Amino acid sequence: MARENRTPVTVIGLGAMGRALAEAFIDAGHPTTVWNRTPAKAAPLVAAGAVHATAVEAAVAASPLVITCLTTFEDTRSALEPAVAALAGRDLTTLNSGSPAGARATAAWAAGHGARFLAGAVKNVPAAVGQADTLLYYSGDRAVFDTHRETLRVLGGDTVHLGDEADLAALYEMAVGATLLPVLAGFFQGAAAVRARGLEAGSMVRFAGKWLDMIKSLLPVYAREIDSGDYTDAASSVNLFLAGAAHDADLAEETGVDVSWLAPLHDLVRRAAEAGHGDHSISALTEILREPAPTA
Amino acid sequence: MARENRTPVTVIGLGAMGRALAEAFIDAGHPTTVWNRTPAKAAPLVAAGAVHATAVEAAVAASPLVITCLTTFEDTRSALEPAVAALAGRDLTTLNSGSPAGARATAAWAAGHGARFLAGAVKNVPAAVGQADTLLYYSGDRAVFDTHRETLRVLGGDTVHLGDEADLAALYEMAVGATLLPVLAGFFQGAAAVRARGLEAGSMVRFAGKWLDMIKSLLPVYAREIDSGDYTDAASSVNLFLAGAAHDADLAEETGVDVSWLAPLHDLVRRAAEAGHGDHSISALTEILREPAPTA
Ligand SMILES: NC(=O)c1ccc[n+]([C@@H]2O[C@H](COP(=O)([O-])OP(=O)(O)OC[C@H]3O[C@@H](n4cnc5c(N)ncnc54)[C@H](OP(=O)(O)O)[C@@H]3O)[C@@H](O)[C@H]2O)c1
Ligand SMILES: NC(=O)c1ccc[n+]([C@@H]2O[C@H](COP(=O)([O-])OP(=O)(O)OC[C@H]3O[C@@H](n4cnc5c(N)ncnc54)[C@H](OP(=O)(O)O)[C@@H]3O)[C@@H](O)[C@H]2O)c1
Repeated sequence: MARENRTPVTVIGLGAMGRALAEAFIDAGHPTTVWNRTPAKAAPLVAAGAVHATAVEAAVAASPLVITCLTTFEDTRSALEPAVAALAGRDLTTLNSGSPAGARATAAWAAGHGARFLAGAVKNVPAAVGQADTLLYYSGDRAVFDTHRETLRVLGGDTVHLGDEADLAALYEMAVGATLLPVLAGFFQGAAAVRARGLEAGSMVRFAGKWLDMIKSLLPVYAREIDSGDYTDAASSVNLFLAGAAHDADLAEETGVDVSWLAPLHDLVRRAAEAGHGDHSISALTEILREPAPTA
Repeated sequence: MARENRTPVTVIGLGAMGRALAEAFIDAGHPTTVWNRTPAKAAPLVAAGAVHATAVEAAVAASPLVITCLTTFEDTRSALEPAVAALAGRDLTTLNSGSPAGARATAAWAAGHGARFLAGAVKNVPAAVGQADTLLYYSGDRAVFDTHRETLRVLGGDTVHLGDEADLAALYEMAVGATLLPVLAGFFQGAAAVRARGLEAGSMVRFAGKWLDMIKSLLPVYAREIDSGDYTDAASSVNLFLAGAAHDADLAEETGVDVSWLAPLHDLVRRAAEAGHGDHSISALTEILREPAPTA
C-alpha cells in the first residue's frame, strides 16, 4: 500500500507494550495519534513522528482504528469514558490481558457506543512487536479484522482471528499463558539448586532450553489424548510422575531450596492415580483439573 | 571405527528407556549383551541381534562397558549385587533418574567393587535415543567418558561431560527437569479451559508451542540476572505477575477449572513483593526459593 494510503491509527496507553505498538505503526508509515494518562510518555513517540492528542476524545476522533493497551479492560473503559461520543463508527481494538468476562463487558460497552469491536492479545514481549514471527490473536467482529488485516500485521506477522465471540482471545490468552509462571518457577528453582552448589544459573540455560523444546514436541500428543479422552497409550504415565515426586524432596534436602510450591502438583498426580489413571498418560491430569478440588 | 572394532556393551534394565538404548547400540553395530529382571523383555532385542545373558553376573562380565537403566540408583545397586565380583575393572554407567545422594552412593559402591563410574541422564524420551540432537549428560570419571565417548554418542549426538563429581548429572537432571510437571500442568489446565468452552485442546497447541519458544528466549536473560544478583532491569516485574494472579481466579470462575495448585506460586510472588522485589524482575523469585518457606 502506498505510504499515503495507510490507515490512520490511534494508540491509547503508552506503557511498555503500548509504546512498542505505537512505534511499530510509526515505523510502518501509519499516521499515528497517541494518548496516555501520564502525558510525558508521549514525548519520545512525538519525536518519532506521532501526533499527541492531549484529550482522549480527540485521540479517538483522530483515526478510524483505535487501539488500546491499558492494564485491564476496566481501565480501558474508564479511560475511554470521556470519549464515548467519539466512538460511534470507529473500530476499537483492545490489546490488554484480561478475563473473558472483561472482554465480553467491553464488547457490549463498545456496541452500546456504536463502535465495532475486536479484542486481541500480543503473545510476546514488547521487543518482539513488529517482527515477522510475532503472534497476536484477535476475536470479535470479523469485519474489523478483515478491514484492518494489513494494518494489524504491522504489529506481528503471525496475526490470527480466532472467532467471532469477543472473549475467545482472552480465553486463549489465559489458557496458553497458564504455563508461564509455572515454567519460570521451575527454572528459578533449578537455578537456586545449581547456585547452592556454587555453579552458575547460566550453565543450565542450554539444557533447560532443549528441555523446553522436548516438552513442546510432546504437546500435540497430549492434545490428541485429551481431545480423544483416550489416555491408555502412555509415553509417560501418571505413576512415573508419582515416582518422580520423591526426587523433589531429594532436591530440597540436597540444596536447601524451597520446593513446597510443588506439593499441590503432586497432589493432583496422586489424585489422578487414585482415580484409576496410574498407568495412563500424564495428560489424564486434565480430567482431574476439570473437577473442583476436594475441600481439605 | 570399523564395525568389528566397536566396543562390546552390556545394557541392564530393558524398560522403555533401556530397550531404546540397547536398540541404538545394536543398530550401530556394537556387540550388545542385555539383561532384565523380567527376562521376557529381552526377546525383541535378541531378535534384533543382542545376546541375552540369563544371569546378571554373566551380563556384567560380557562387556568392558556396562550401562544400566533401572528405575532408581537403589534398584541399580540391588540388581547388580549378585554381579559385584564381575564389576572389577569394568566401566559402569548409570542412565536412570535419581538424586545426587543416590549418585554419590552408587559411585562409592562402584569404587568399592573396583569399577570406574559415570552417572548420566537422558534428557529426552526413548524415541529420541540415537538422534543427532538428543542430549545426554554425564558426570564422574572423565577417563570413562573419554574412553567411551564415541560409543556413548551412539545414544545421542549431544553428549556432554559436566564434571568429575559423580552427582553433577543428577543435580542438573533435577534442576533442569524441574520445569516438566509445572509446564504440563499449565498446559493441561489450559486444555481443560478451552474444552470447557467446547473447543479442542489441539486448537491451542500451536500457540502454546510458540509461547514456550518465547519463554525459552527469556532464559538467558533471567540466568544473567540471577548470576549477577541484579534484578533491577525488569522486563517483567514481580508486580506484573502479582496483578496477573487475579486472572487465574477469573479462569476458574469462567471455566470451572481447578486452579488451586497455583496458589503457592502466587504466594511466592507475594513474598517476593513483600521482600522489596515488587519492581524487580520476576527472576528475583530465585531469592525467595532459596530461603526456607515460612511455617504457615
Ligand atoms: N509488557 C509485556 O511484556 C506484555 C506482554 C503481553 C501483554 N501485555 C499486556 O499489555 C497490557 C499493558 O501492559 P504494559 O506492559 O504496557 O503495562 P504498563 O507498562 O504498566 O502500562 C500500563 C498502561 O496502562 C495505563 N493505564 C492503566 N490504568 C489506567 C487508567 N485507569 N486510566 C488510564 N490509563 C491507565 C498506564 O497509564 P500511565 O502511564 O498513566 O500509568 C500505561 O499506559 C497489559 O494488559 C499487559 O498484561 C504486556
Ligand atoms: N521413559 C522415559 O521417558 C525416560 C526419560 C528419561 C529418563 N528416564 C529414566 O530412565 C529410567 C528407566 O525408565 P524407564 O522408562 O525405562 O522405566 P520402566 O519402563 O518402568 O523400566 C524400569 C526398568 O527397571 C527395572 N527394575 C526396576 N527395579 C528393579 C530392581 N529392583 N531390580 C531389577 N530391575 C529393576 C525394570 O525391570 P522389570 O522389567 O523386571 O520390571 C525395568 O527394566 C528411570 O530412572 C527414568 O526416570 C526415562
